[in-house]
Amino acid sequence: MAPMAYSKPIEYEDASPEVRAVFDEIMAARKLDRVNNFWKYLANDPGTLRRTWESIRQIMAPGALDPLTKELIYIAVSVTNGCEYCVASHTAAAASKGMTPEMFAEMMAVTGMANETNRLVTGYRVELDEALR
Amino acid sequence: MAPMAYSKPIEYEDASPEVRAVFDEIMAARKLDRVNNFWKYLANDPGTLRRTWESIRQIMAPGALDPLTKELIYIAVSVTNGCEYCVASHTAAAASKGMTPEMFAEMMAVTGMANETNRLVTGYRVELDEALR
Amino acid sequence: MAPMAYSKPIEYEDASPEVRAVFDEIMAARKLDRVNNFWKYLANDPGTLRRTWESIRQIMAPGALDPLTKELIYIAVSVTNGCEYCVASHTAAAASKGMTPEMFAEMMAVTGMANETNRLVTGYRVELDEALR
Amino acid sequence: MAPMAYSKPIEYEDASPEVRAVFDEIMAARKLDRVNNFWKYLANDPGTLRRTWESIRQIMAPGALDPLTKELIYIAVSVTNGCEYCVASHTAAAASKGMTPEMFAEMMAVTGMANETNRLVTGYRVELDEALR
Amino acid sequence: MAPMAYSKPIEYEDASPEVRAVFDEIMAARKLDRVNNFWKYLANDPGTLRRTWESIRQIMAPGALDPLTKELIYIAVSVTNGCEYCVASHTAAAASKGMTPEMFAEMMAVTGMANETNRLVTGYRVELDEALR
Amino acid sequence: MAPMAYSKPIEYEDASPEVRAVFDEIMAARKLDRVNNFWKYLANDPGTLRRTWESIRQIMAPGALDPLTKELIYIAVSVTNGCEYCVASHTAAAASKGMTPEMFAEMMAVTGMANETNRLVTGYRVELDEALR
Repeated sequence: MAPMAYSKPIEYEDASPEVRAVFDEIMAARKLDRVNNFWKYLANDPGTLRRTWESIRQIMAPGALDPLTKELIYIAVSVTNGCEYCVASHTAAAASKGMTPEMFAEMMAVTGMANETNRLVTGYRVELDEALR
Repeated sequence: MAPMAYSKPIEYEDASPEVRAVFDEIMAARKLDRVNNFWKYLANDPGTLRRTWESIRQIMAPGALDPLTKELIYIAVSVTNGCEYCVASHTAAAASKGMTPEMFAEMMAVTGMANETNRLVTGYRVELDEALR
Repeated sequence: MAPMAYSKPIEYEDASPEVRAVFDEIMAARKLDRVNNFWKYLANDPGTLRRTWESIRQIMAPGALDPLTKELIYIAVSVTNGCEYCVASHTAAAASKGMTPEMFAEMMAVTGMANETNRLVTGYRVELDEALR
Repeated sequence: MAPMAYSKPIEYEDASPEVRAVFDEIMAARKLDRVNNFWKYLANDPGTLRRTWESIRQIMAPGALDPLTKELIYIAVSVTNGCEYCVASHTAAAASKGMTPEMFAEMMAVTGMANETNRLVTGYRVELDEALR
Repeated sequence: MAPMAYSKPIEYEDASPEVRAVFDEIMAARKLDRVNNFWKYLANDPGTLRRTWESIRQIMAPGALDPLTKELIYIAVSVTNGCEYCVASHTAAAASKGMTPEMFAEMMAVTGMANETNRLVTGYRVELDEALR
Repeated sequence: MAPMAYSKPIEYEDASPEVRAVFDEIMAARKLDRVNNFWKYLANDPGTLRRTWESIRQIMAPGALDPLTKELIYIAVSVTNGCEYCVASHTAAAASKGMTPEMFAEMMAVTGMANETNRLVTGYRVELDEALR
């Protein structure tokens, strides 16, 4: 089998009722008439699709943190992991929730700095302060 | 030379005037009477100490994002990089800026989820949506 | 020199006898009449080509684990490191050894989950259980 | 608040009914009379505890891959992410499912090799083979 | 806003005086009549552009290590992080400073090996030698 | 089996002739009367021990790059991967090959900077320059 067989995008019209039900929930929640490729690819495994959607729906909902702050954190992690698709899609999601270019730039500055100091700590073998234990 | 020779903590009383000047700025800015081990270890390289402090001071200042949001992003990156010291020190910093346990828990849930979906995207080889280009 | 000078694909007809010998072994072992780009690029350094081929040949051979299980592990690591080429080539290799779409999907679910919980452990600073020391 | 306030282990006797219910399910499923520290720390966020347990229970169940193969993949990812706790706990879990020292050693050899070749691919900028698209 | 709005390349003719000043310094220091895309994208945030340029200028200058050795280290880190752009641009920078294909190949061999043994250490849970504390 | 069963340090007096032969080679090559814990743990898998030693011996030998430069690259990668043991052991190895504190500090500054700019590139989605293709 070619690699494609393991992960082709599943379009709505080709999807099983189980997958369509999740697609319908996503489109309703996001007020969109299509789902992103991310969901179309996850549809190769309906169990993972369902579980991922339910987790994301709960986790990204407003709570002690507002949805935009959550998207900023999502981008920062995706940048740190080098996931280009995730950076693009969550930057778009954050934009739709009101992220300004200034907010994006500051999030990026913090993310860059954290990546630098994380490594300085490791290389200098910084010992945990008594007060931080 | 033992590894220690490359990265021992430099205490204020043993520090050069150049290093003391940075320590003084840090203590003044943070209203503390000591600096964390992070700064004491960076003091092995006064240039890196000075540059890191000035960058952090600028980047973590209030701007389009408030300081607590910046600390949450800092923790999320540090968790993703597996830097234990950084997680401990920035959790403490976020606490001092008003992070509640609920905020910490939500930041962690987003961070965990982002790490999971970043990998799902890579493994399923999700292609960038036309709309995200 | 342009970057290309450091890592152009070396085709069989342009290869040194030393490189051809490795290419011949790979084609014979894999019953293929060409080698993947991976090997053509490694051929820029015949020492690394030889060493990598011999290590992979030994490590991926049937042993206490069967070759398909080894390919699943290889994909999981490649996904975690975000190596797109490696994901594509080892997914194809696993396919040729009998991986079903269901096996791929379960490997991906485990990989996603492990990436999530690895970070939860770091962020919550989970202490090692006495029984695990 | 000290860092501890965000992530202390929650013991059964101090847990809410919601947390106890999850602990009970874990102990019943695993035929153990205690839960690992991982679960005690996650209990700081009952939502994450519940969601993580249900995901792990589903994902690690026998399916197209047997539970031991899944644990081997889990260890390989945890090793790649540098999560010491996760390596220790999933090595113990794999042991309880029949992993022999030979299986562990082969999984480690594959994991080490994959980490090496993932980087060789990136540094040599290996282009995707036509056949792998 | 589309993702592009957050990170489009800023060309010299469209740049603010603040950004042009940095571009001018880069072109003068590197004896080039254009700057790389890296700088054009960072110009979305003039503060980060200025800070990054000044840090790189200081850090990459000749010191106890020569500039070529520093570029080799830069490539090794970029390879380990899977940053394709960074690998390409720093390979070109190293080339301009005299890196031979043999030096590139040896740097890559060390980088590959380090990535492998880093993981072997984690998986085998190697304890720190008394002499290394 | 306890986790220990998979990765206990193998002391010379308890080692098989196959393992002792490798230990002897390491001690002879390094002019030491003991081997580091790294080798004692790898000895759990004599095949990996032998293969790793032969690879390291070849890769770290003087060539187009001198052994100290190779150690600096090794540390930079280990720092980036967050491998504490590897940082400690290769810092000691570099020290024995003449690394000065100034060289260590400059390597660390480059490593920190590279980690920062790697992420800036990803977050700003910097497109490859025509000249770098």
